[in-house]
Amino acid sequence: MAIELYWGSGSPFAWRVMLTLEVKGLDYRSKLLEFSKGENKAPEYLKLNPRGKVPTLKDGAFVVYESLAIMTYLDRKYPTPPLFGNSPEETGQIWRVISECESYLVSAGDKVVRPIFFAKGLDKVDEIQQAGQTIRQELTTVNEQLAHSNWLVGASISAADIGVFPLVQLLMRAASKEAAQPLNLGLLPLAQTFPNIARWVERIEALPNYQRTYPPHWR
Amino acid sequence: MAIELYWGSGSPFAWRVMLTLEVKGLDYRSKLLEFSKGENKAPEYLKLNPRGKVPTLKDGAFVVYESLAIMTYLDRKYPTPPLFGNSPEETGQIWRVISECESYLVSAGDKVVRPIFFAKGLDKVDEIQQAGQTIRQELTTVNEQLAHSNWLVGASISAADIGVFPLVQLLMRAASKEAAQPLNLGLLPLAQTFPNIARWVERIEALPNYQRTYPPHWR
Repeated sequence: MAIELYWGSGSPFAWRVMLTLEVKGLDYRSKLLEFSKGENKAPEYLKLNPRGKVPTLKDGAFVVYESLAIMTYLDRKYPTPPLFGNSPEETGQIWRVISECESYLVSAGDKVVRPIFFAKGLDKVDEIQQAGQTIRQELTTVNEQLAHSNWLVGASISAADIGVFPLVQLLMRAASKEAAQPLNLGLLPLAQTFPNIARWVERIEALPNYQRTYPPHWR
Repeated sequence: MAIELYWGSGSPFAWRVMLTLEVKGLDYRSKLLEFSKGENKAPEYLKLNPRGKVPTLKDGAFVVYESLAIMTYLDRKYPTPPLFGNSPEETGQIWRVISECESYLVSAGDKVVRPIFFAKGLDKVDEIQQAGQTIRQELTTVNEQLAHSNWLVGASISAADIGVFPLVQLLMRAASKEAAQPLNLGLLPLAQTFPNIARWVERIEALPNYQRTYPPHWR
């Protein structure tokens, strides 16, 4: 039975799983949910994922949700290429990068992206700009980590890169919107603000089948 | 060279690592940092962990921080007993539980615990009670998962149990404080509100060397 992936266009968390599937060269059936039609809250879907969020992965009879959980499942079930490190030290550093992304970048990102995309709360300029500062700090760290290597941890793409990349893309997209201009987020142009990240983004964009993972409504 | 663990008394994240070390039967040198003396912001410590947070683990020349990252490092370096599952499915479910804890329980917990412990923002009753509702929802899920098994995932203690347990203990401690009483958090007594969790807490408290992990300033 084919792997089935339930996802939503533009969800950075679903994007992580699509990249994982593509990097591992796994076939999967795409189940794109339309949030605007409430498909993620439909009773059939809630049986798979009671939170009504994306992504959810179904592999035969096995169902799992939460992006990082899906990535760890896929990595153990389909170990080639390994995405969580080739040594205990790499494993630890990969999860350190992912944990920092989850604890600092995701929440700050949310405070910036939501107001811009949904034109809601854009008047809370102080709050947004404070989150913007956190984002710049976190991206500065990421940029430094990429100063002397092509990938965040180790000699090849890992779950650290796949975990962080969709968040970076989401932030850059938000920063490019007209509503973001008065906020002076200081994120763009990426090649000037964070040149190592810009080159790393190009590296990931050059992966085979990358285009299949790109959010369709962003085109 | 011995493993060195830098930790702070009462940090649920440091507690996770201590439990991991004890469950694996690993010797380690305890480096208790006094936050009140600013020891976590001392230049020597910031060289190990630039965020000035706990926990940080040093194993020979290798340094890693962020609790989950340390746990994955230890599990790969010292694999007995395995804490991240005996199959791809268990691995996925363990990370699903951990991800849910990180995404929902930790942030809601913070909004309740901080005001109570630091007597700051206790007037924001609506906000605290909304977080309290999230906590009760999350603990309801955890309680259901423990209805038919001793451990959150699989037949023995795993990183899921170790990840969630210190947060539960922290919440129960906060809920027992006098400042928490007007908030009506509906968490205590645990044996009545979440009986399966109460028995699971007893199970973990009965682990060999559990007492060595208990926050000293809580005694």
